[in-house]
Amino acid sequence: MKSILIKNIVLNNKLTDILIKDNLIDKISEDIDFQADRIINGNGRSVIPGLVNMHTHAAMTLMRGIGEDLSLTEWLESKIWPTERKLTDEMVYWGTKLACLEMIKSGTTCFNDQYWSLPYAVQAADEMGMRSFQPYVILDLLDESNSEKIKYECEKMYELSGKWSSRNKFAIGLHAPYSVSRNMIVWASEFAQKRDMLVHIHLSETKGENDRSLAMHGVSSTYYLEQLGVLNSKMIAAHCLWMDDADIDLLAKRDVKIVHNINSNLKIASGYKFRYNEFRDAGLTVSLGTDGCASSNNLDMIETMKTTALVQKGWRGDPRELPLDELISLATVNGGKSLGIKCGVIEEGYLADLVIIDTNSVAFTPNINFLANLIYSANSSCVDTVICDGKILMENRIIEGEQEILRMANKLYMDLL
Amino acid sequence: MKSILIKNIVLNNKLTDILIKDNLIDKISEDIDFQADRIINGNGRSVIPGLVNMHTHAAMTLMRGIGEDLSLTEWLESKIWPTERKLTDEMVYWGTKLACLEMIKSGTTCFNDQYWSLPYAVQAADEMGMRSFQPYVILDLLDESNSEKIKYECEKMYELSGKWSSRNKFAIGLHAPYSVSRNMIVWASEFAQKRDMLVHIHLSETKGENDRSLAMHGVSSTYYLEQLGVLNSKMIAAHCLWMDDADIDLLAKRDVKIVHNINSNLKIASGYKFRYNEFRDAGLTVSLGTDGCASSNNLDMIETMKTTALVQKGWRGDPRELPLDELISLATVNGGKSLGIKCGVIEEGYLADLVIIDTNSVAFTPNINFLANLIYSANSSCVDTVICDGKILMENRIIEGEQEILRMANKLYMDLL
Repeated sequence: MKSILIKNIVLNNKLTDILIKDNLIDKISEDIDFQADRIINGNGRSVIPGLVNMHTHAAMTLMRGIGEDLSLTEWLESKIWPTERKLTDEMVYWGTKLACLEMIKSGTTCFNDQYWSLPYAVQAADEMGMRSFQPYVILDLLDESNSEKIKYECEKMYELSGKWSSRNKFAIGLHAPYSVSRNMIVWASEFAQKRDMLVHIHLSETKGENDRSLAMHGVSSTYYLEQLGVLNSKMIAAHCLWMDDADIDLLAKRDVKIVHNINSNLKIASGYKFRYNEFRDAGLTVSLGTDGCASSNNLDMIETMKTTALVQKGWRGDPRELPLDELISLATVNGGKSLGIKCGVIEEGYLADLVIIDTNSVAFTPNINFLANLIYSANSSCVDTVICDGKILMENRIIEGEQEILRMANKLYMDLL
Repeated sequence: MKSILIKNIVLNNKLTDILIKDNLIDKISEDIDFQADRIINGNGRSVIPGLVNMHTHAAMTLMRGIGEDLSLTEWLESKIWPTERKLTDEMVYWGTKLACLEMIKSGTTCFNDQYWSLPYAVQAADEMGMRSFQPYVILDLLDESNSEKIKYECEKMYELSGKWSSRNKFAIGLHAPYSVSRNMIVWASEFAQKRDMLVHIHLSETKGENDRSLAMHGVSSTYYLEQLGVLNSKMIAAHCLWMDDADIDLLAKRDVKIVHNINSNLKIASGYKFRYNEFRDAGLTVSLGTDGCASSNNLDMIETMKTTALVQKGWRGDPRELPLDELISLATVNGGKSLGIKCGVIEEGYLADLVIIDTNSVAFTPNINFLANLIYSANSSCVDTVICDGKILMENRIIEGEQEILRMANKLYMDLL
C-alpha cells in the first residue's frame, strides 16, 4: 500500500495534516506522525477537493477555436460536423490527453465525458491518471435501421469495460431526446438500469428543442422522456435551460441529476436563465460542467464557478444569489453525488482526489476570504499540485509528458482544418 | 535615448520584429538590424497592445473579498463605507501598488482610476511604471457647505500635478450625478474644460439611480447632465446600463465616452443588458473596465473581455454578437481613443505599451485562432512580458518588488477588518 502525508496544509481555514493510504483519505488531523512513502510539505498552502467536470466532450479540445462568432447552424454545418467526420481514433486519443492535461492543470480530477472512439478516450484518461465516466454514445438520428448494430457494439464495449481500471467507469451516452429514436432510448435505458449504470444525456438545451418536442409529442422534452419511462436517479441531464415548474417537479420526483454549463450556454446563445434556485429548492442535485472546447473553448472549472455565480446574481438581480459555500459544492461534492462515488469531499474515507492551491500570489492578497479569492479573483494558474486516486498527477504545476501532448495536438489538428 | 528590439514575435498572425526607441514604437518590420540597448527574443511568442482598464478604484484592491454575497445596502453600509473610513494614505499607496502589480501581471499597461489620497496613488502608479489617469475625486453628497474647500483643494492638486511624470495625468472625478451637487458638477466640468482635462463619472449604474433622477429632476441621469451642460467628448462615463434610445442619441451627439464593467455589474447585480450594439451603431466609443476589487474582486482585463462577449451573446440570444476583432478593440484602442492618447495600437509612432503572450501552453493548443485562445481559452497567466512607455515592467512574469508588495498588503489590510 502506497501512502502520502501532506503536512501543514490549510483545509477550511485551519492548518492540518492529511494522510492518504492507497486511494483513500485515511486521516485528517493536526500533527500526524506516520512514515509515509511520500511527504508533501503544504507550507501553509490550501487544499480543496478535486473539481468534478460533469459534462464535457474531452476529445473536442483538439477543435478549440475552430468556429468562432458563428450562428448555431453555420457553426454546426460548416465547422463541427465536417470536422468530426475527419476525426480519427488517434485524434481522439491525443485530444483526450490534451483535455486531461488541461483539466489537471486547472484542478479537475474527475470528468463525465461523452464522445466517440471510446477505447481511445479511455486509454488516454487512464494514462493521465484521471477519474472518468466514459459512455458508449448513441446517436441514431431517429433512424432505426442500424439499431441492431448499435446494440451489439454497446454490449461488446460493455464487456470490454470489465478490463478498465477502477477509475474509469462505463456509462451510456444518449445524445438527446430529439436525436435518438424512441425504441433506442428505451433499450439503452433498460440496458443501463440492469447493470446499475449512468445514462448521460443532453436535455432541454435550446428553446427550439423544447418547442419541437411540444409540436411533435405534445409535451416538453422532459415529459417526453417520462412517457418513455427513462427518467430516474441514474440519469445525468446536461443543460436543462428551458424548464418550466412542471418539468422541475417531475425531475425532482425522479431524482434526475442536473448539470449546468454556463460558458457554453452563453457562447452559443442557448440561454442563460438557468433556474438554479428552483432546482435546488425542489431537492435536485445540481452540478457544473464546461461542455466541450468546440463550444466553450476551455475546461476550466474555477472559471465555470465564477461565471455561474455572476450570471445567477445578474439575471436574478440579487447579489446574494448562489453564495460561495453553495457554489463550491456544485463543482465538488454534488458531482460526486451525481456520479454515485465518494469524491468531492475532503473527509476520512473519501477518495483521495485533492488539489493544492498556491495562495502566495497577488490574486490571494489580501487573503480575507479564501473561497472568494479562489473563485472570483484567481485563475486556474493557482492550482499547484493535483492528487487523484491517491496518485500525484501534477506537482508544482509540472506534468510528465506535457510537451509531447502539446506537440502531438499541434501536429494532428492540422488534418482537421 | 533607450531602445528595445523585439525579434521574432507574432503580430496579427505574422512573424516580425519591433523596434522601440524611447517611449515610442519606432519601426515594425521583418528582420530589423539595429544595435538596440536591449534585445528580447520573441521566440515565436505573440504580442498584443497593452490592455487599457478604463474604470477602476485601484486602492480598493486592499479590500478584496471583504464583503461577499451581500445585498447592495448591506455591502455598502456594513462593509465598504466603514472600511473606507479606516483607509490611510499608506494603505492607498500600498493598495495601489498591489493593483498595479495585478494589472501588469494580467497585461494591463494603462488605467483610468478614481480614488482618494491622490498623491499616494500617483506615487504608487508612477513607481510601478504604469500609465494612468488620476482624478481628483469630488463627492459632496449634495452638501454645498464645503464647496470652497473642495475647489481650493482641487486647484492645489492640479498645480501639484504639473510635477507628475508624463505617464500620469490629472483628471476630474465626479462620483455620480446623484451624489454631487448641481453647482459643483458645473464648476468641476468648467474647471476641466478650461484645462482640456477628462472628467470621469459613474452614470446610470442602477435602475434605482435612473428612477430617482426621473422623480427628482423629471429626466434621466443622462438628460440631467445635459441640462447642466456638462456632457462632452472629454467625459468618461462608467457603467451606462440603464439607457433608453433617447439617452444613447444624446450621448452620441455629445460624443461621451462609454465604459462597460460587466463583472462588477453582474456581481453586485446592477444590471447586465448593456446595449453595446446600440452604443456602437450610434458611433460611440465603448471601452471596458474592471471596476474596483471590492465589487468585482480582480483587475483582469482578459477575463473581462471574455465575460463581456459571453454576456452580450447570451442576453441577445445570438452567438454572432461582439466578434473577436471588435472585442479586443474595446480593451485596447478604444481605451486609448477615449483617453485621447496614442496607446492600444501596435503601429509605428504609437506609445510603446506592449504585452508578450506565451503561447506554448495547453490553452493555446491547438493555435487555430490566437484571439479566441487568448480571450476564451487562456487566462492571464499567459502574459509573459509587459512593456509600458518603452520600459520593461515585467519579464518572464517577474516583477521587481512583488514579494514586498504582497507582504505590505497582507500586513495593512488587517487594520481594515
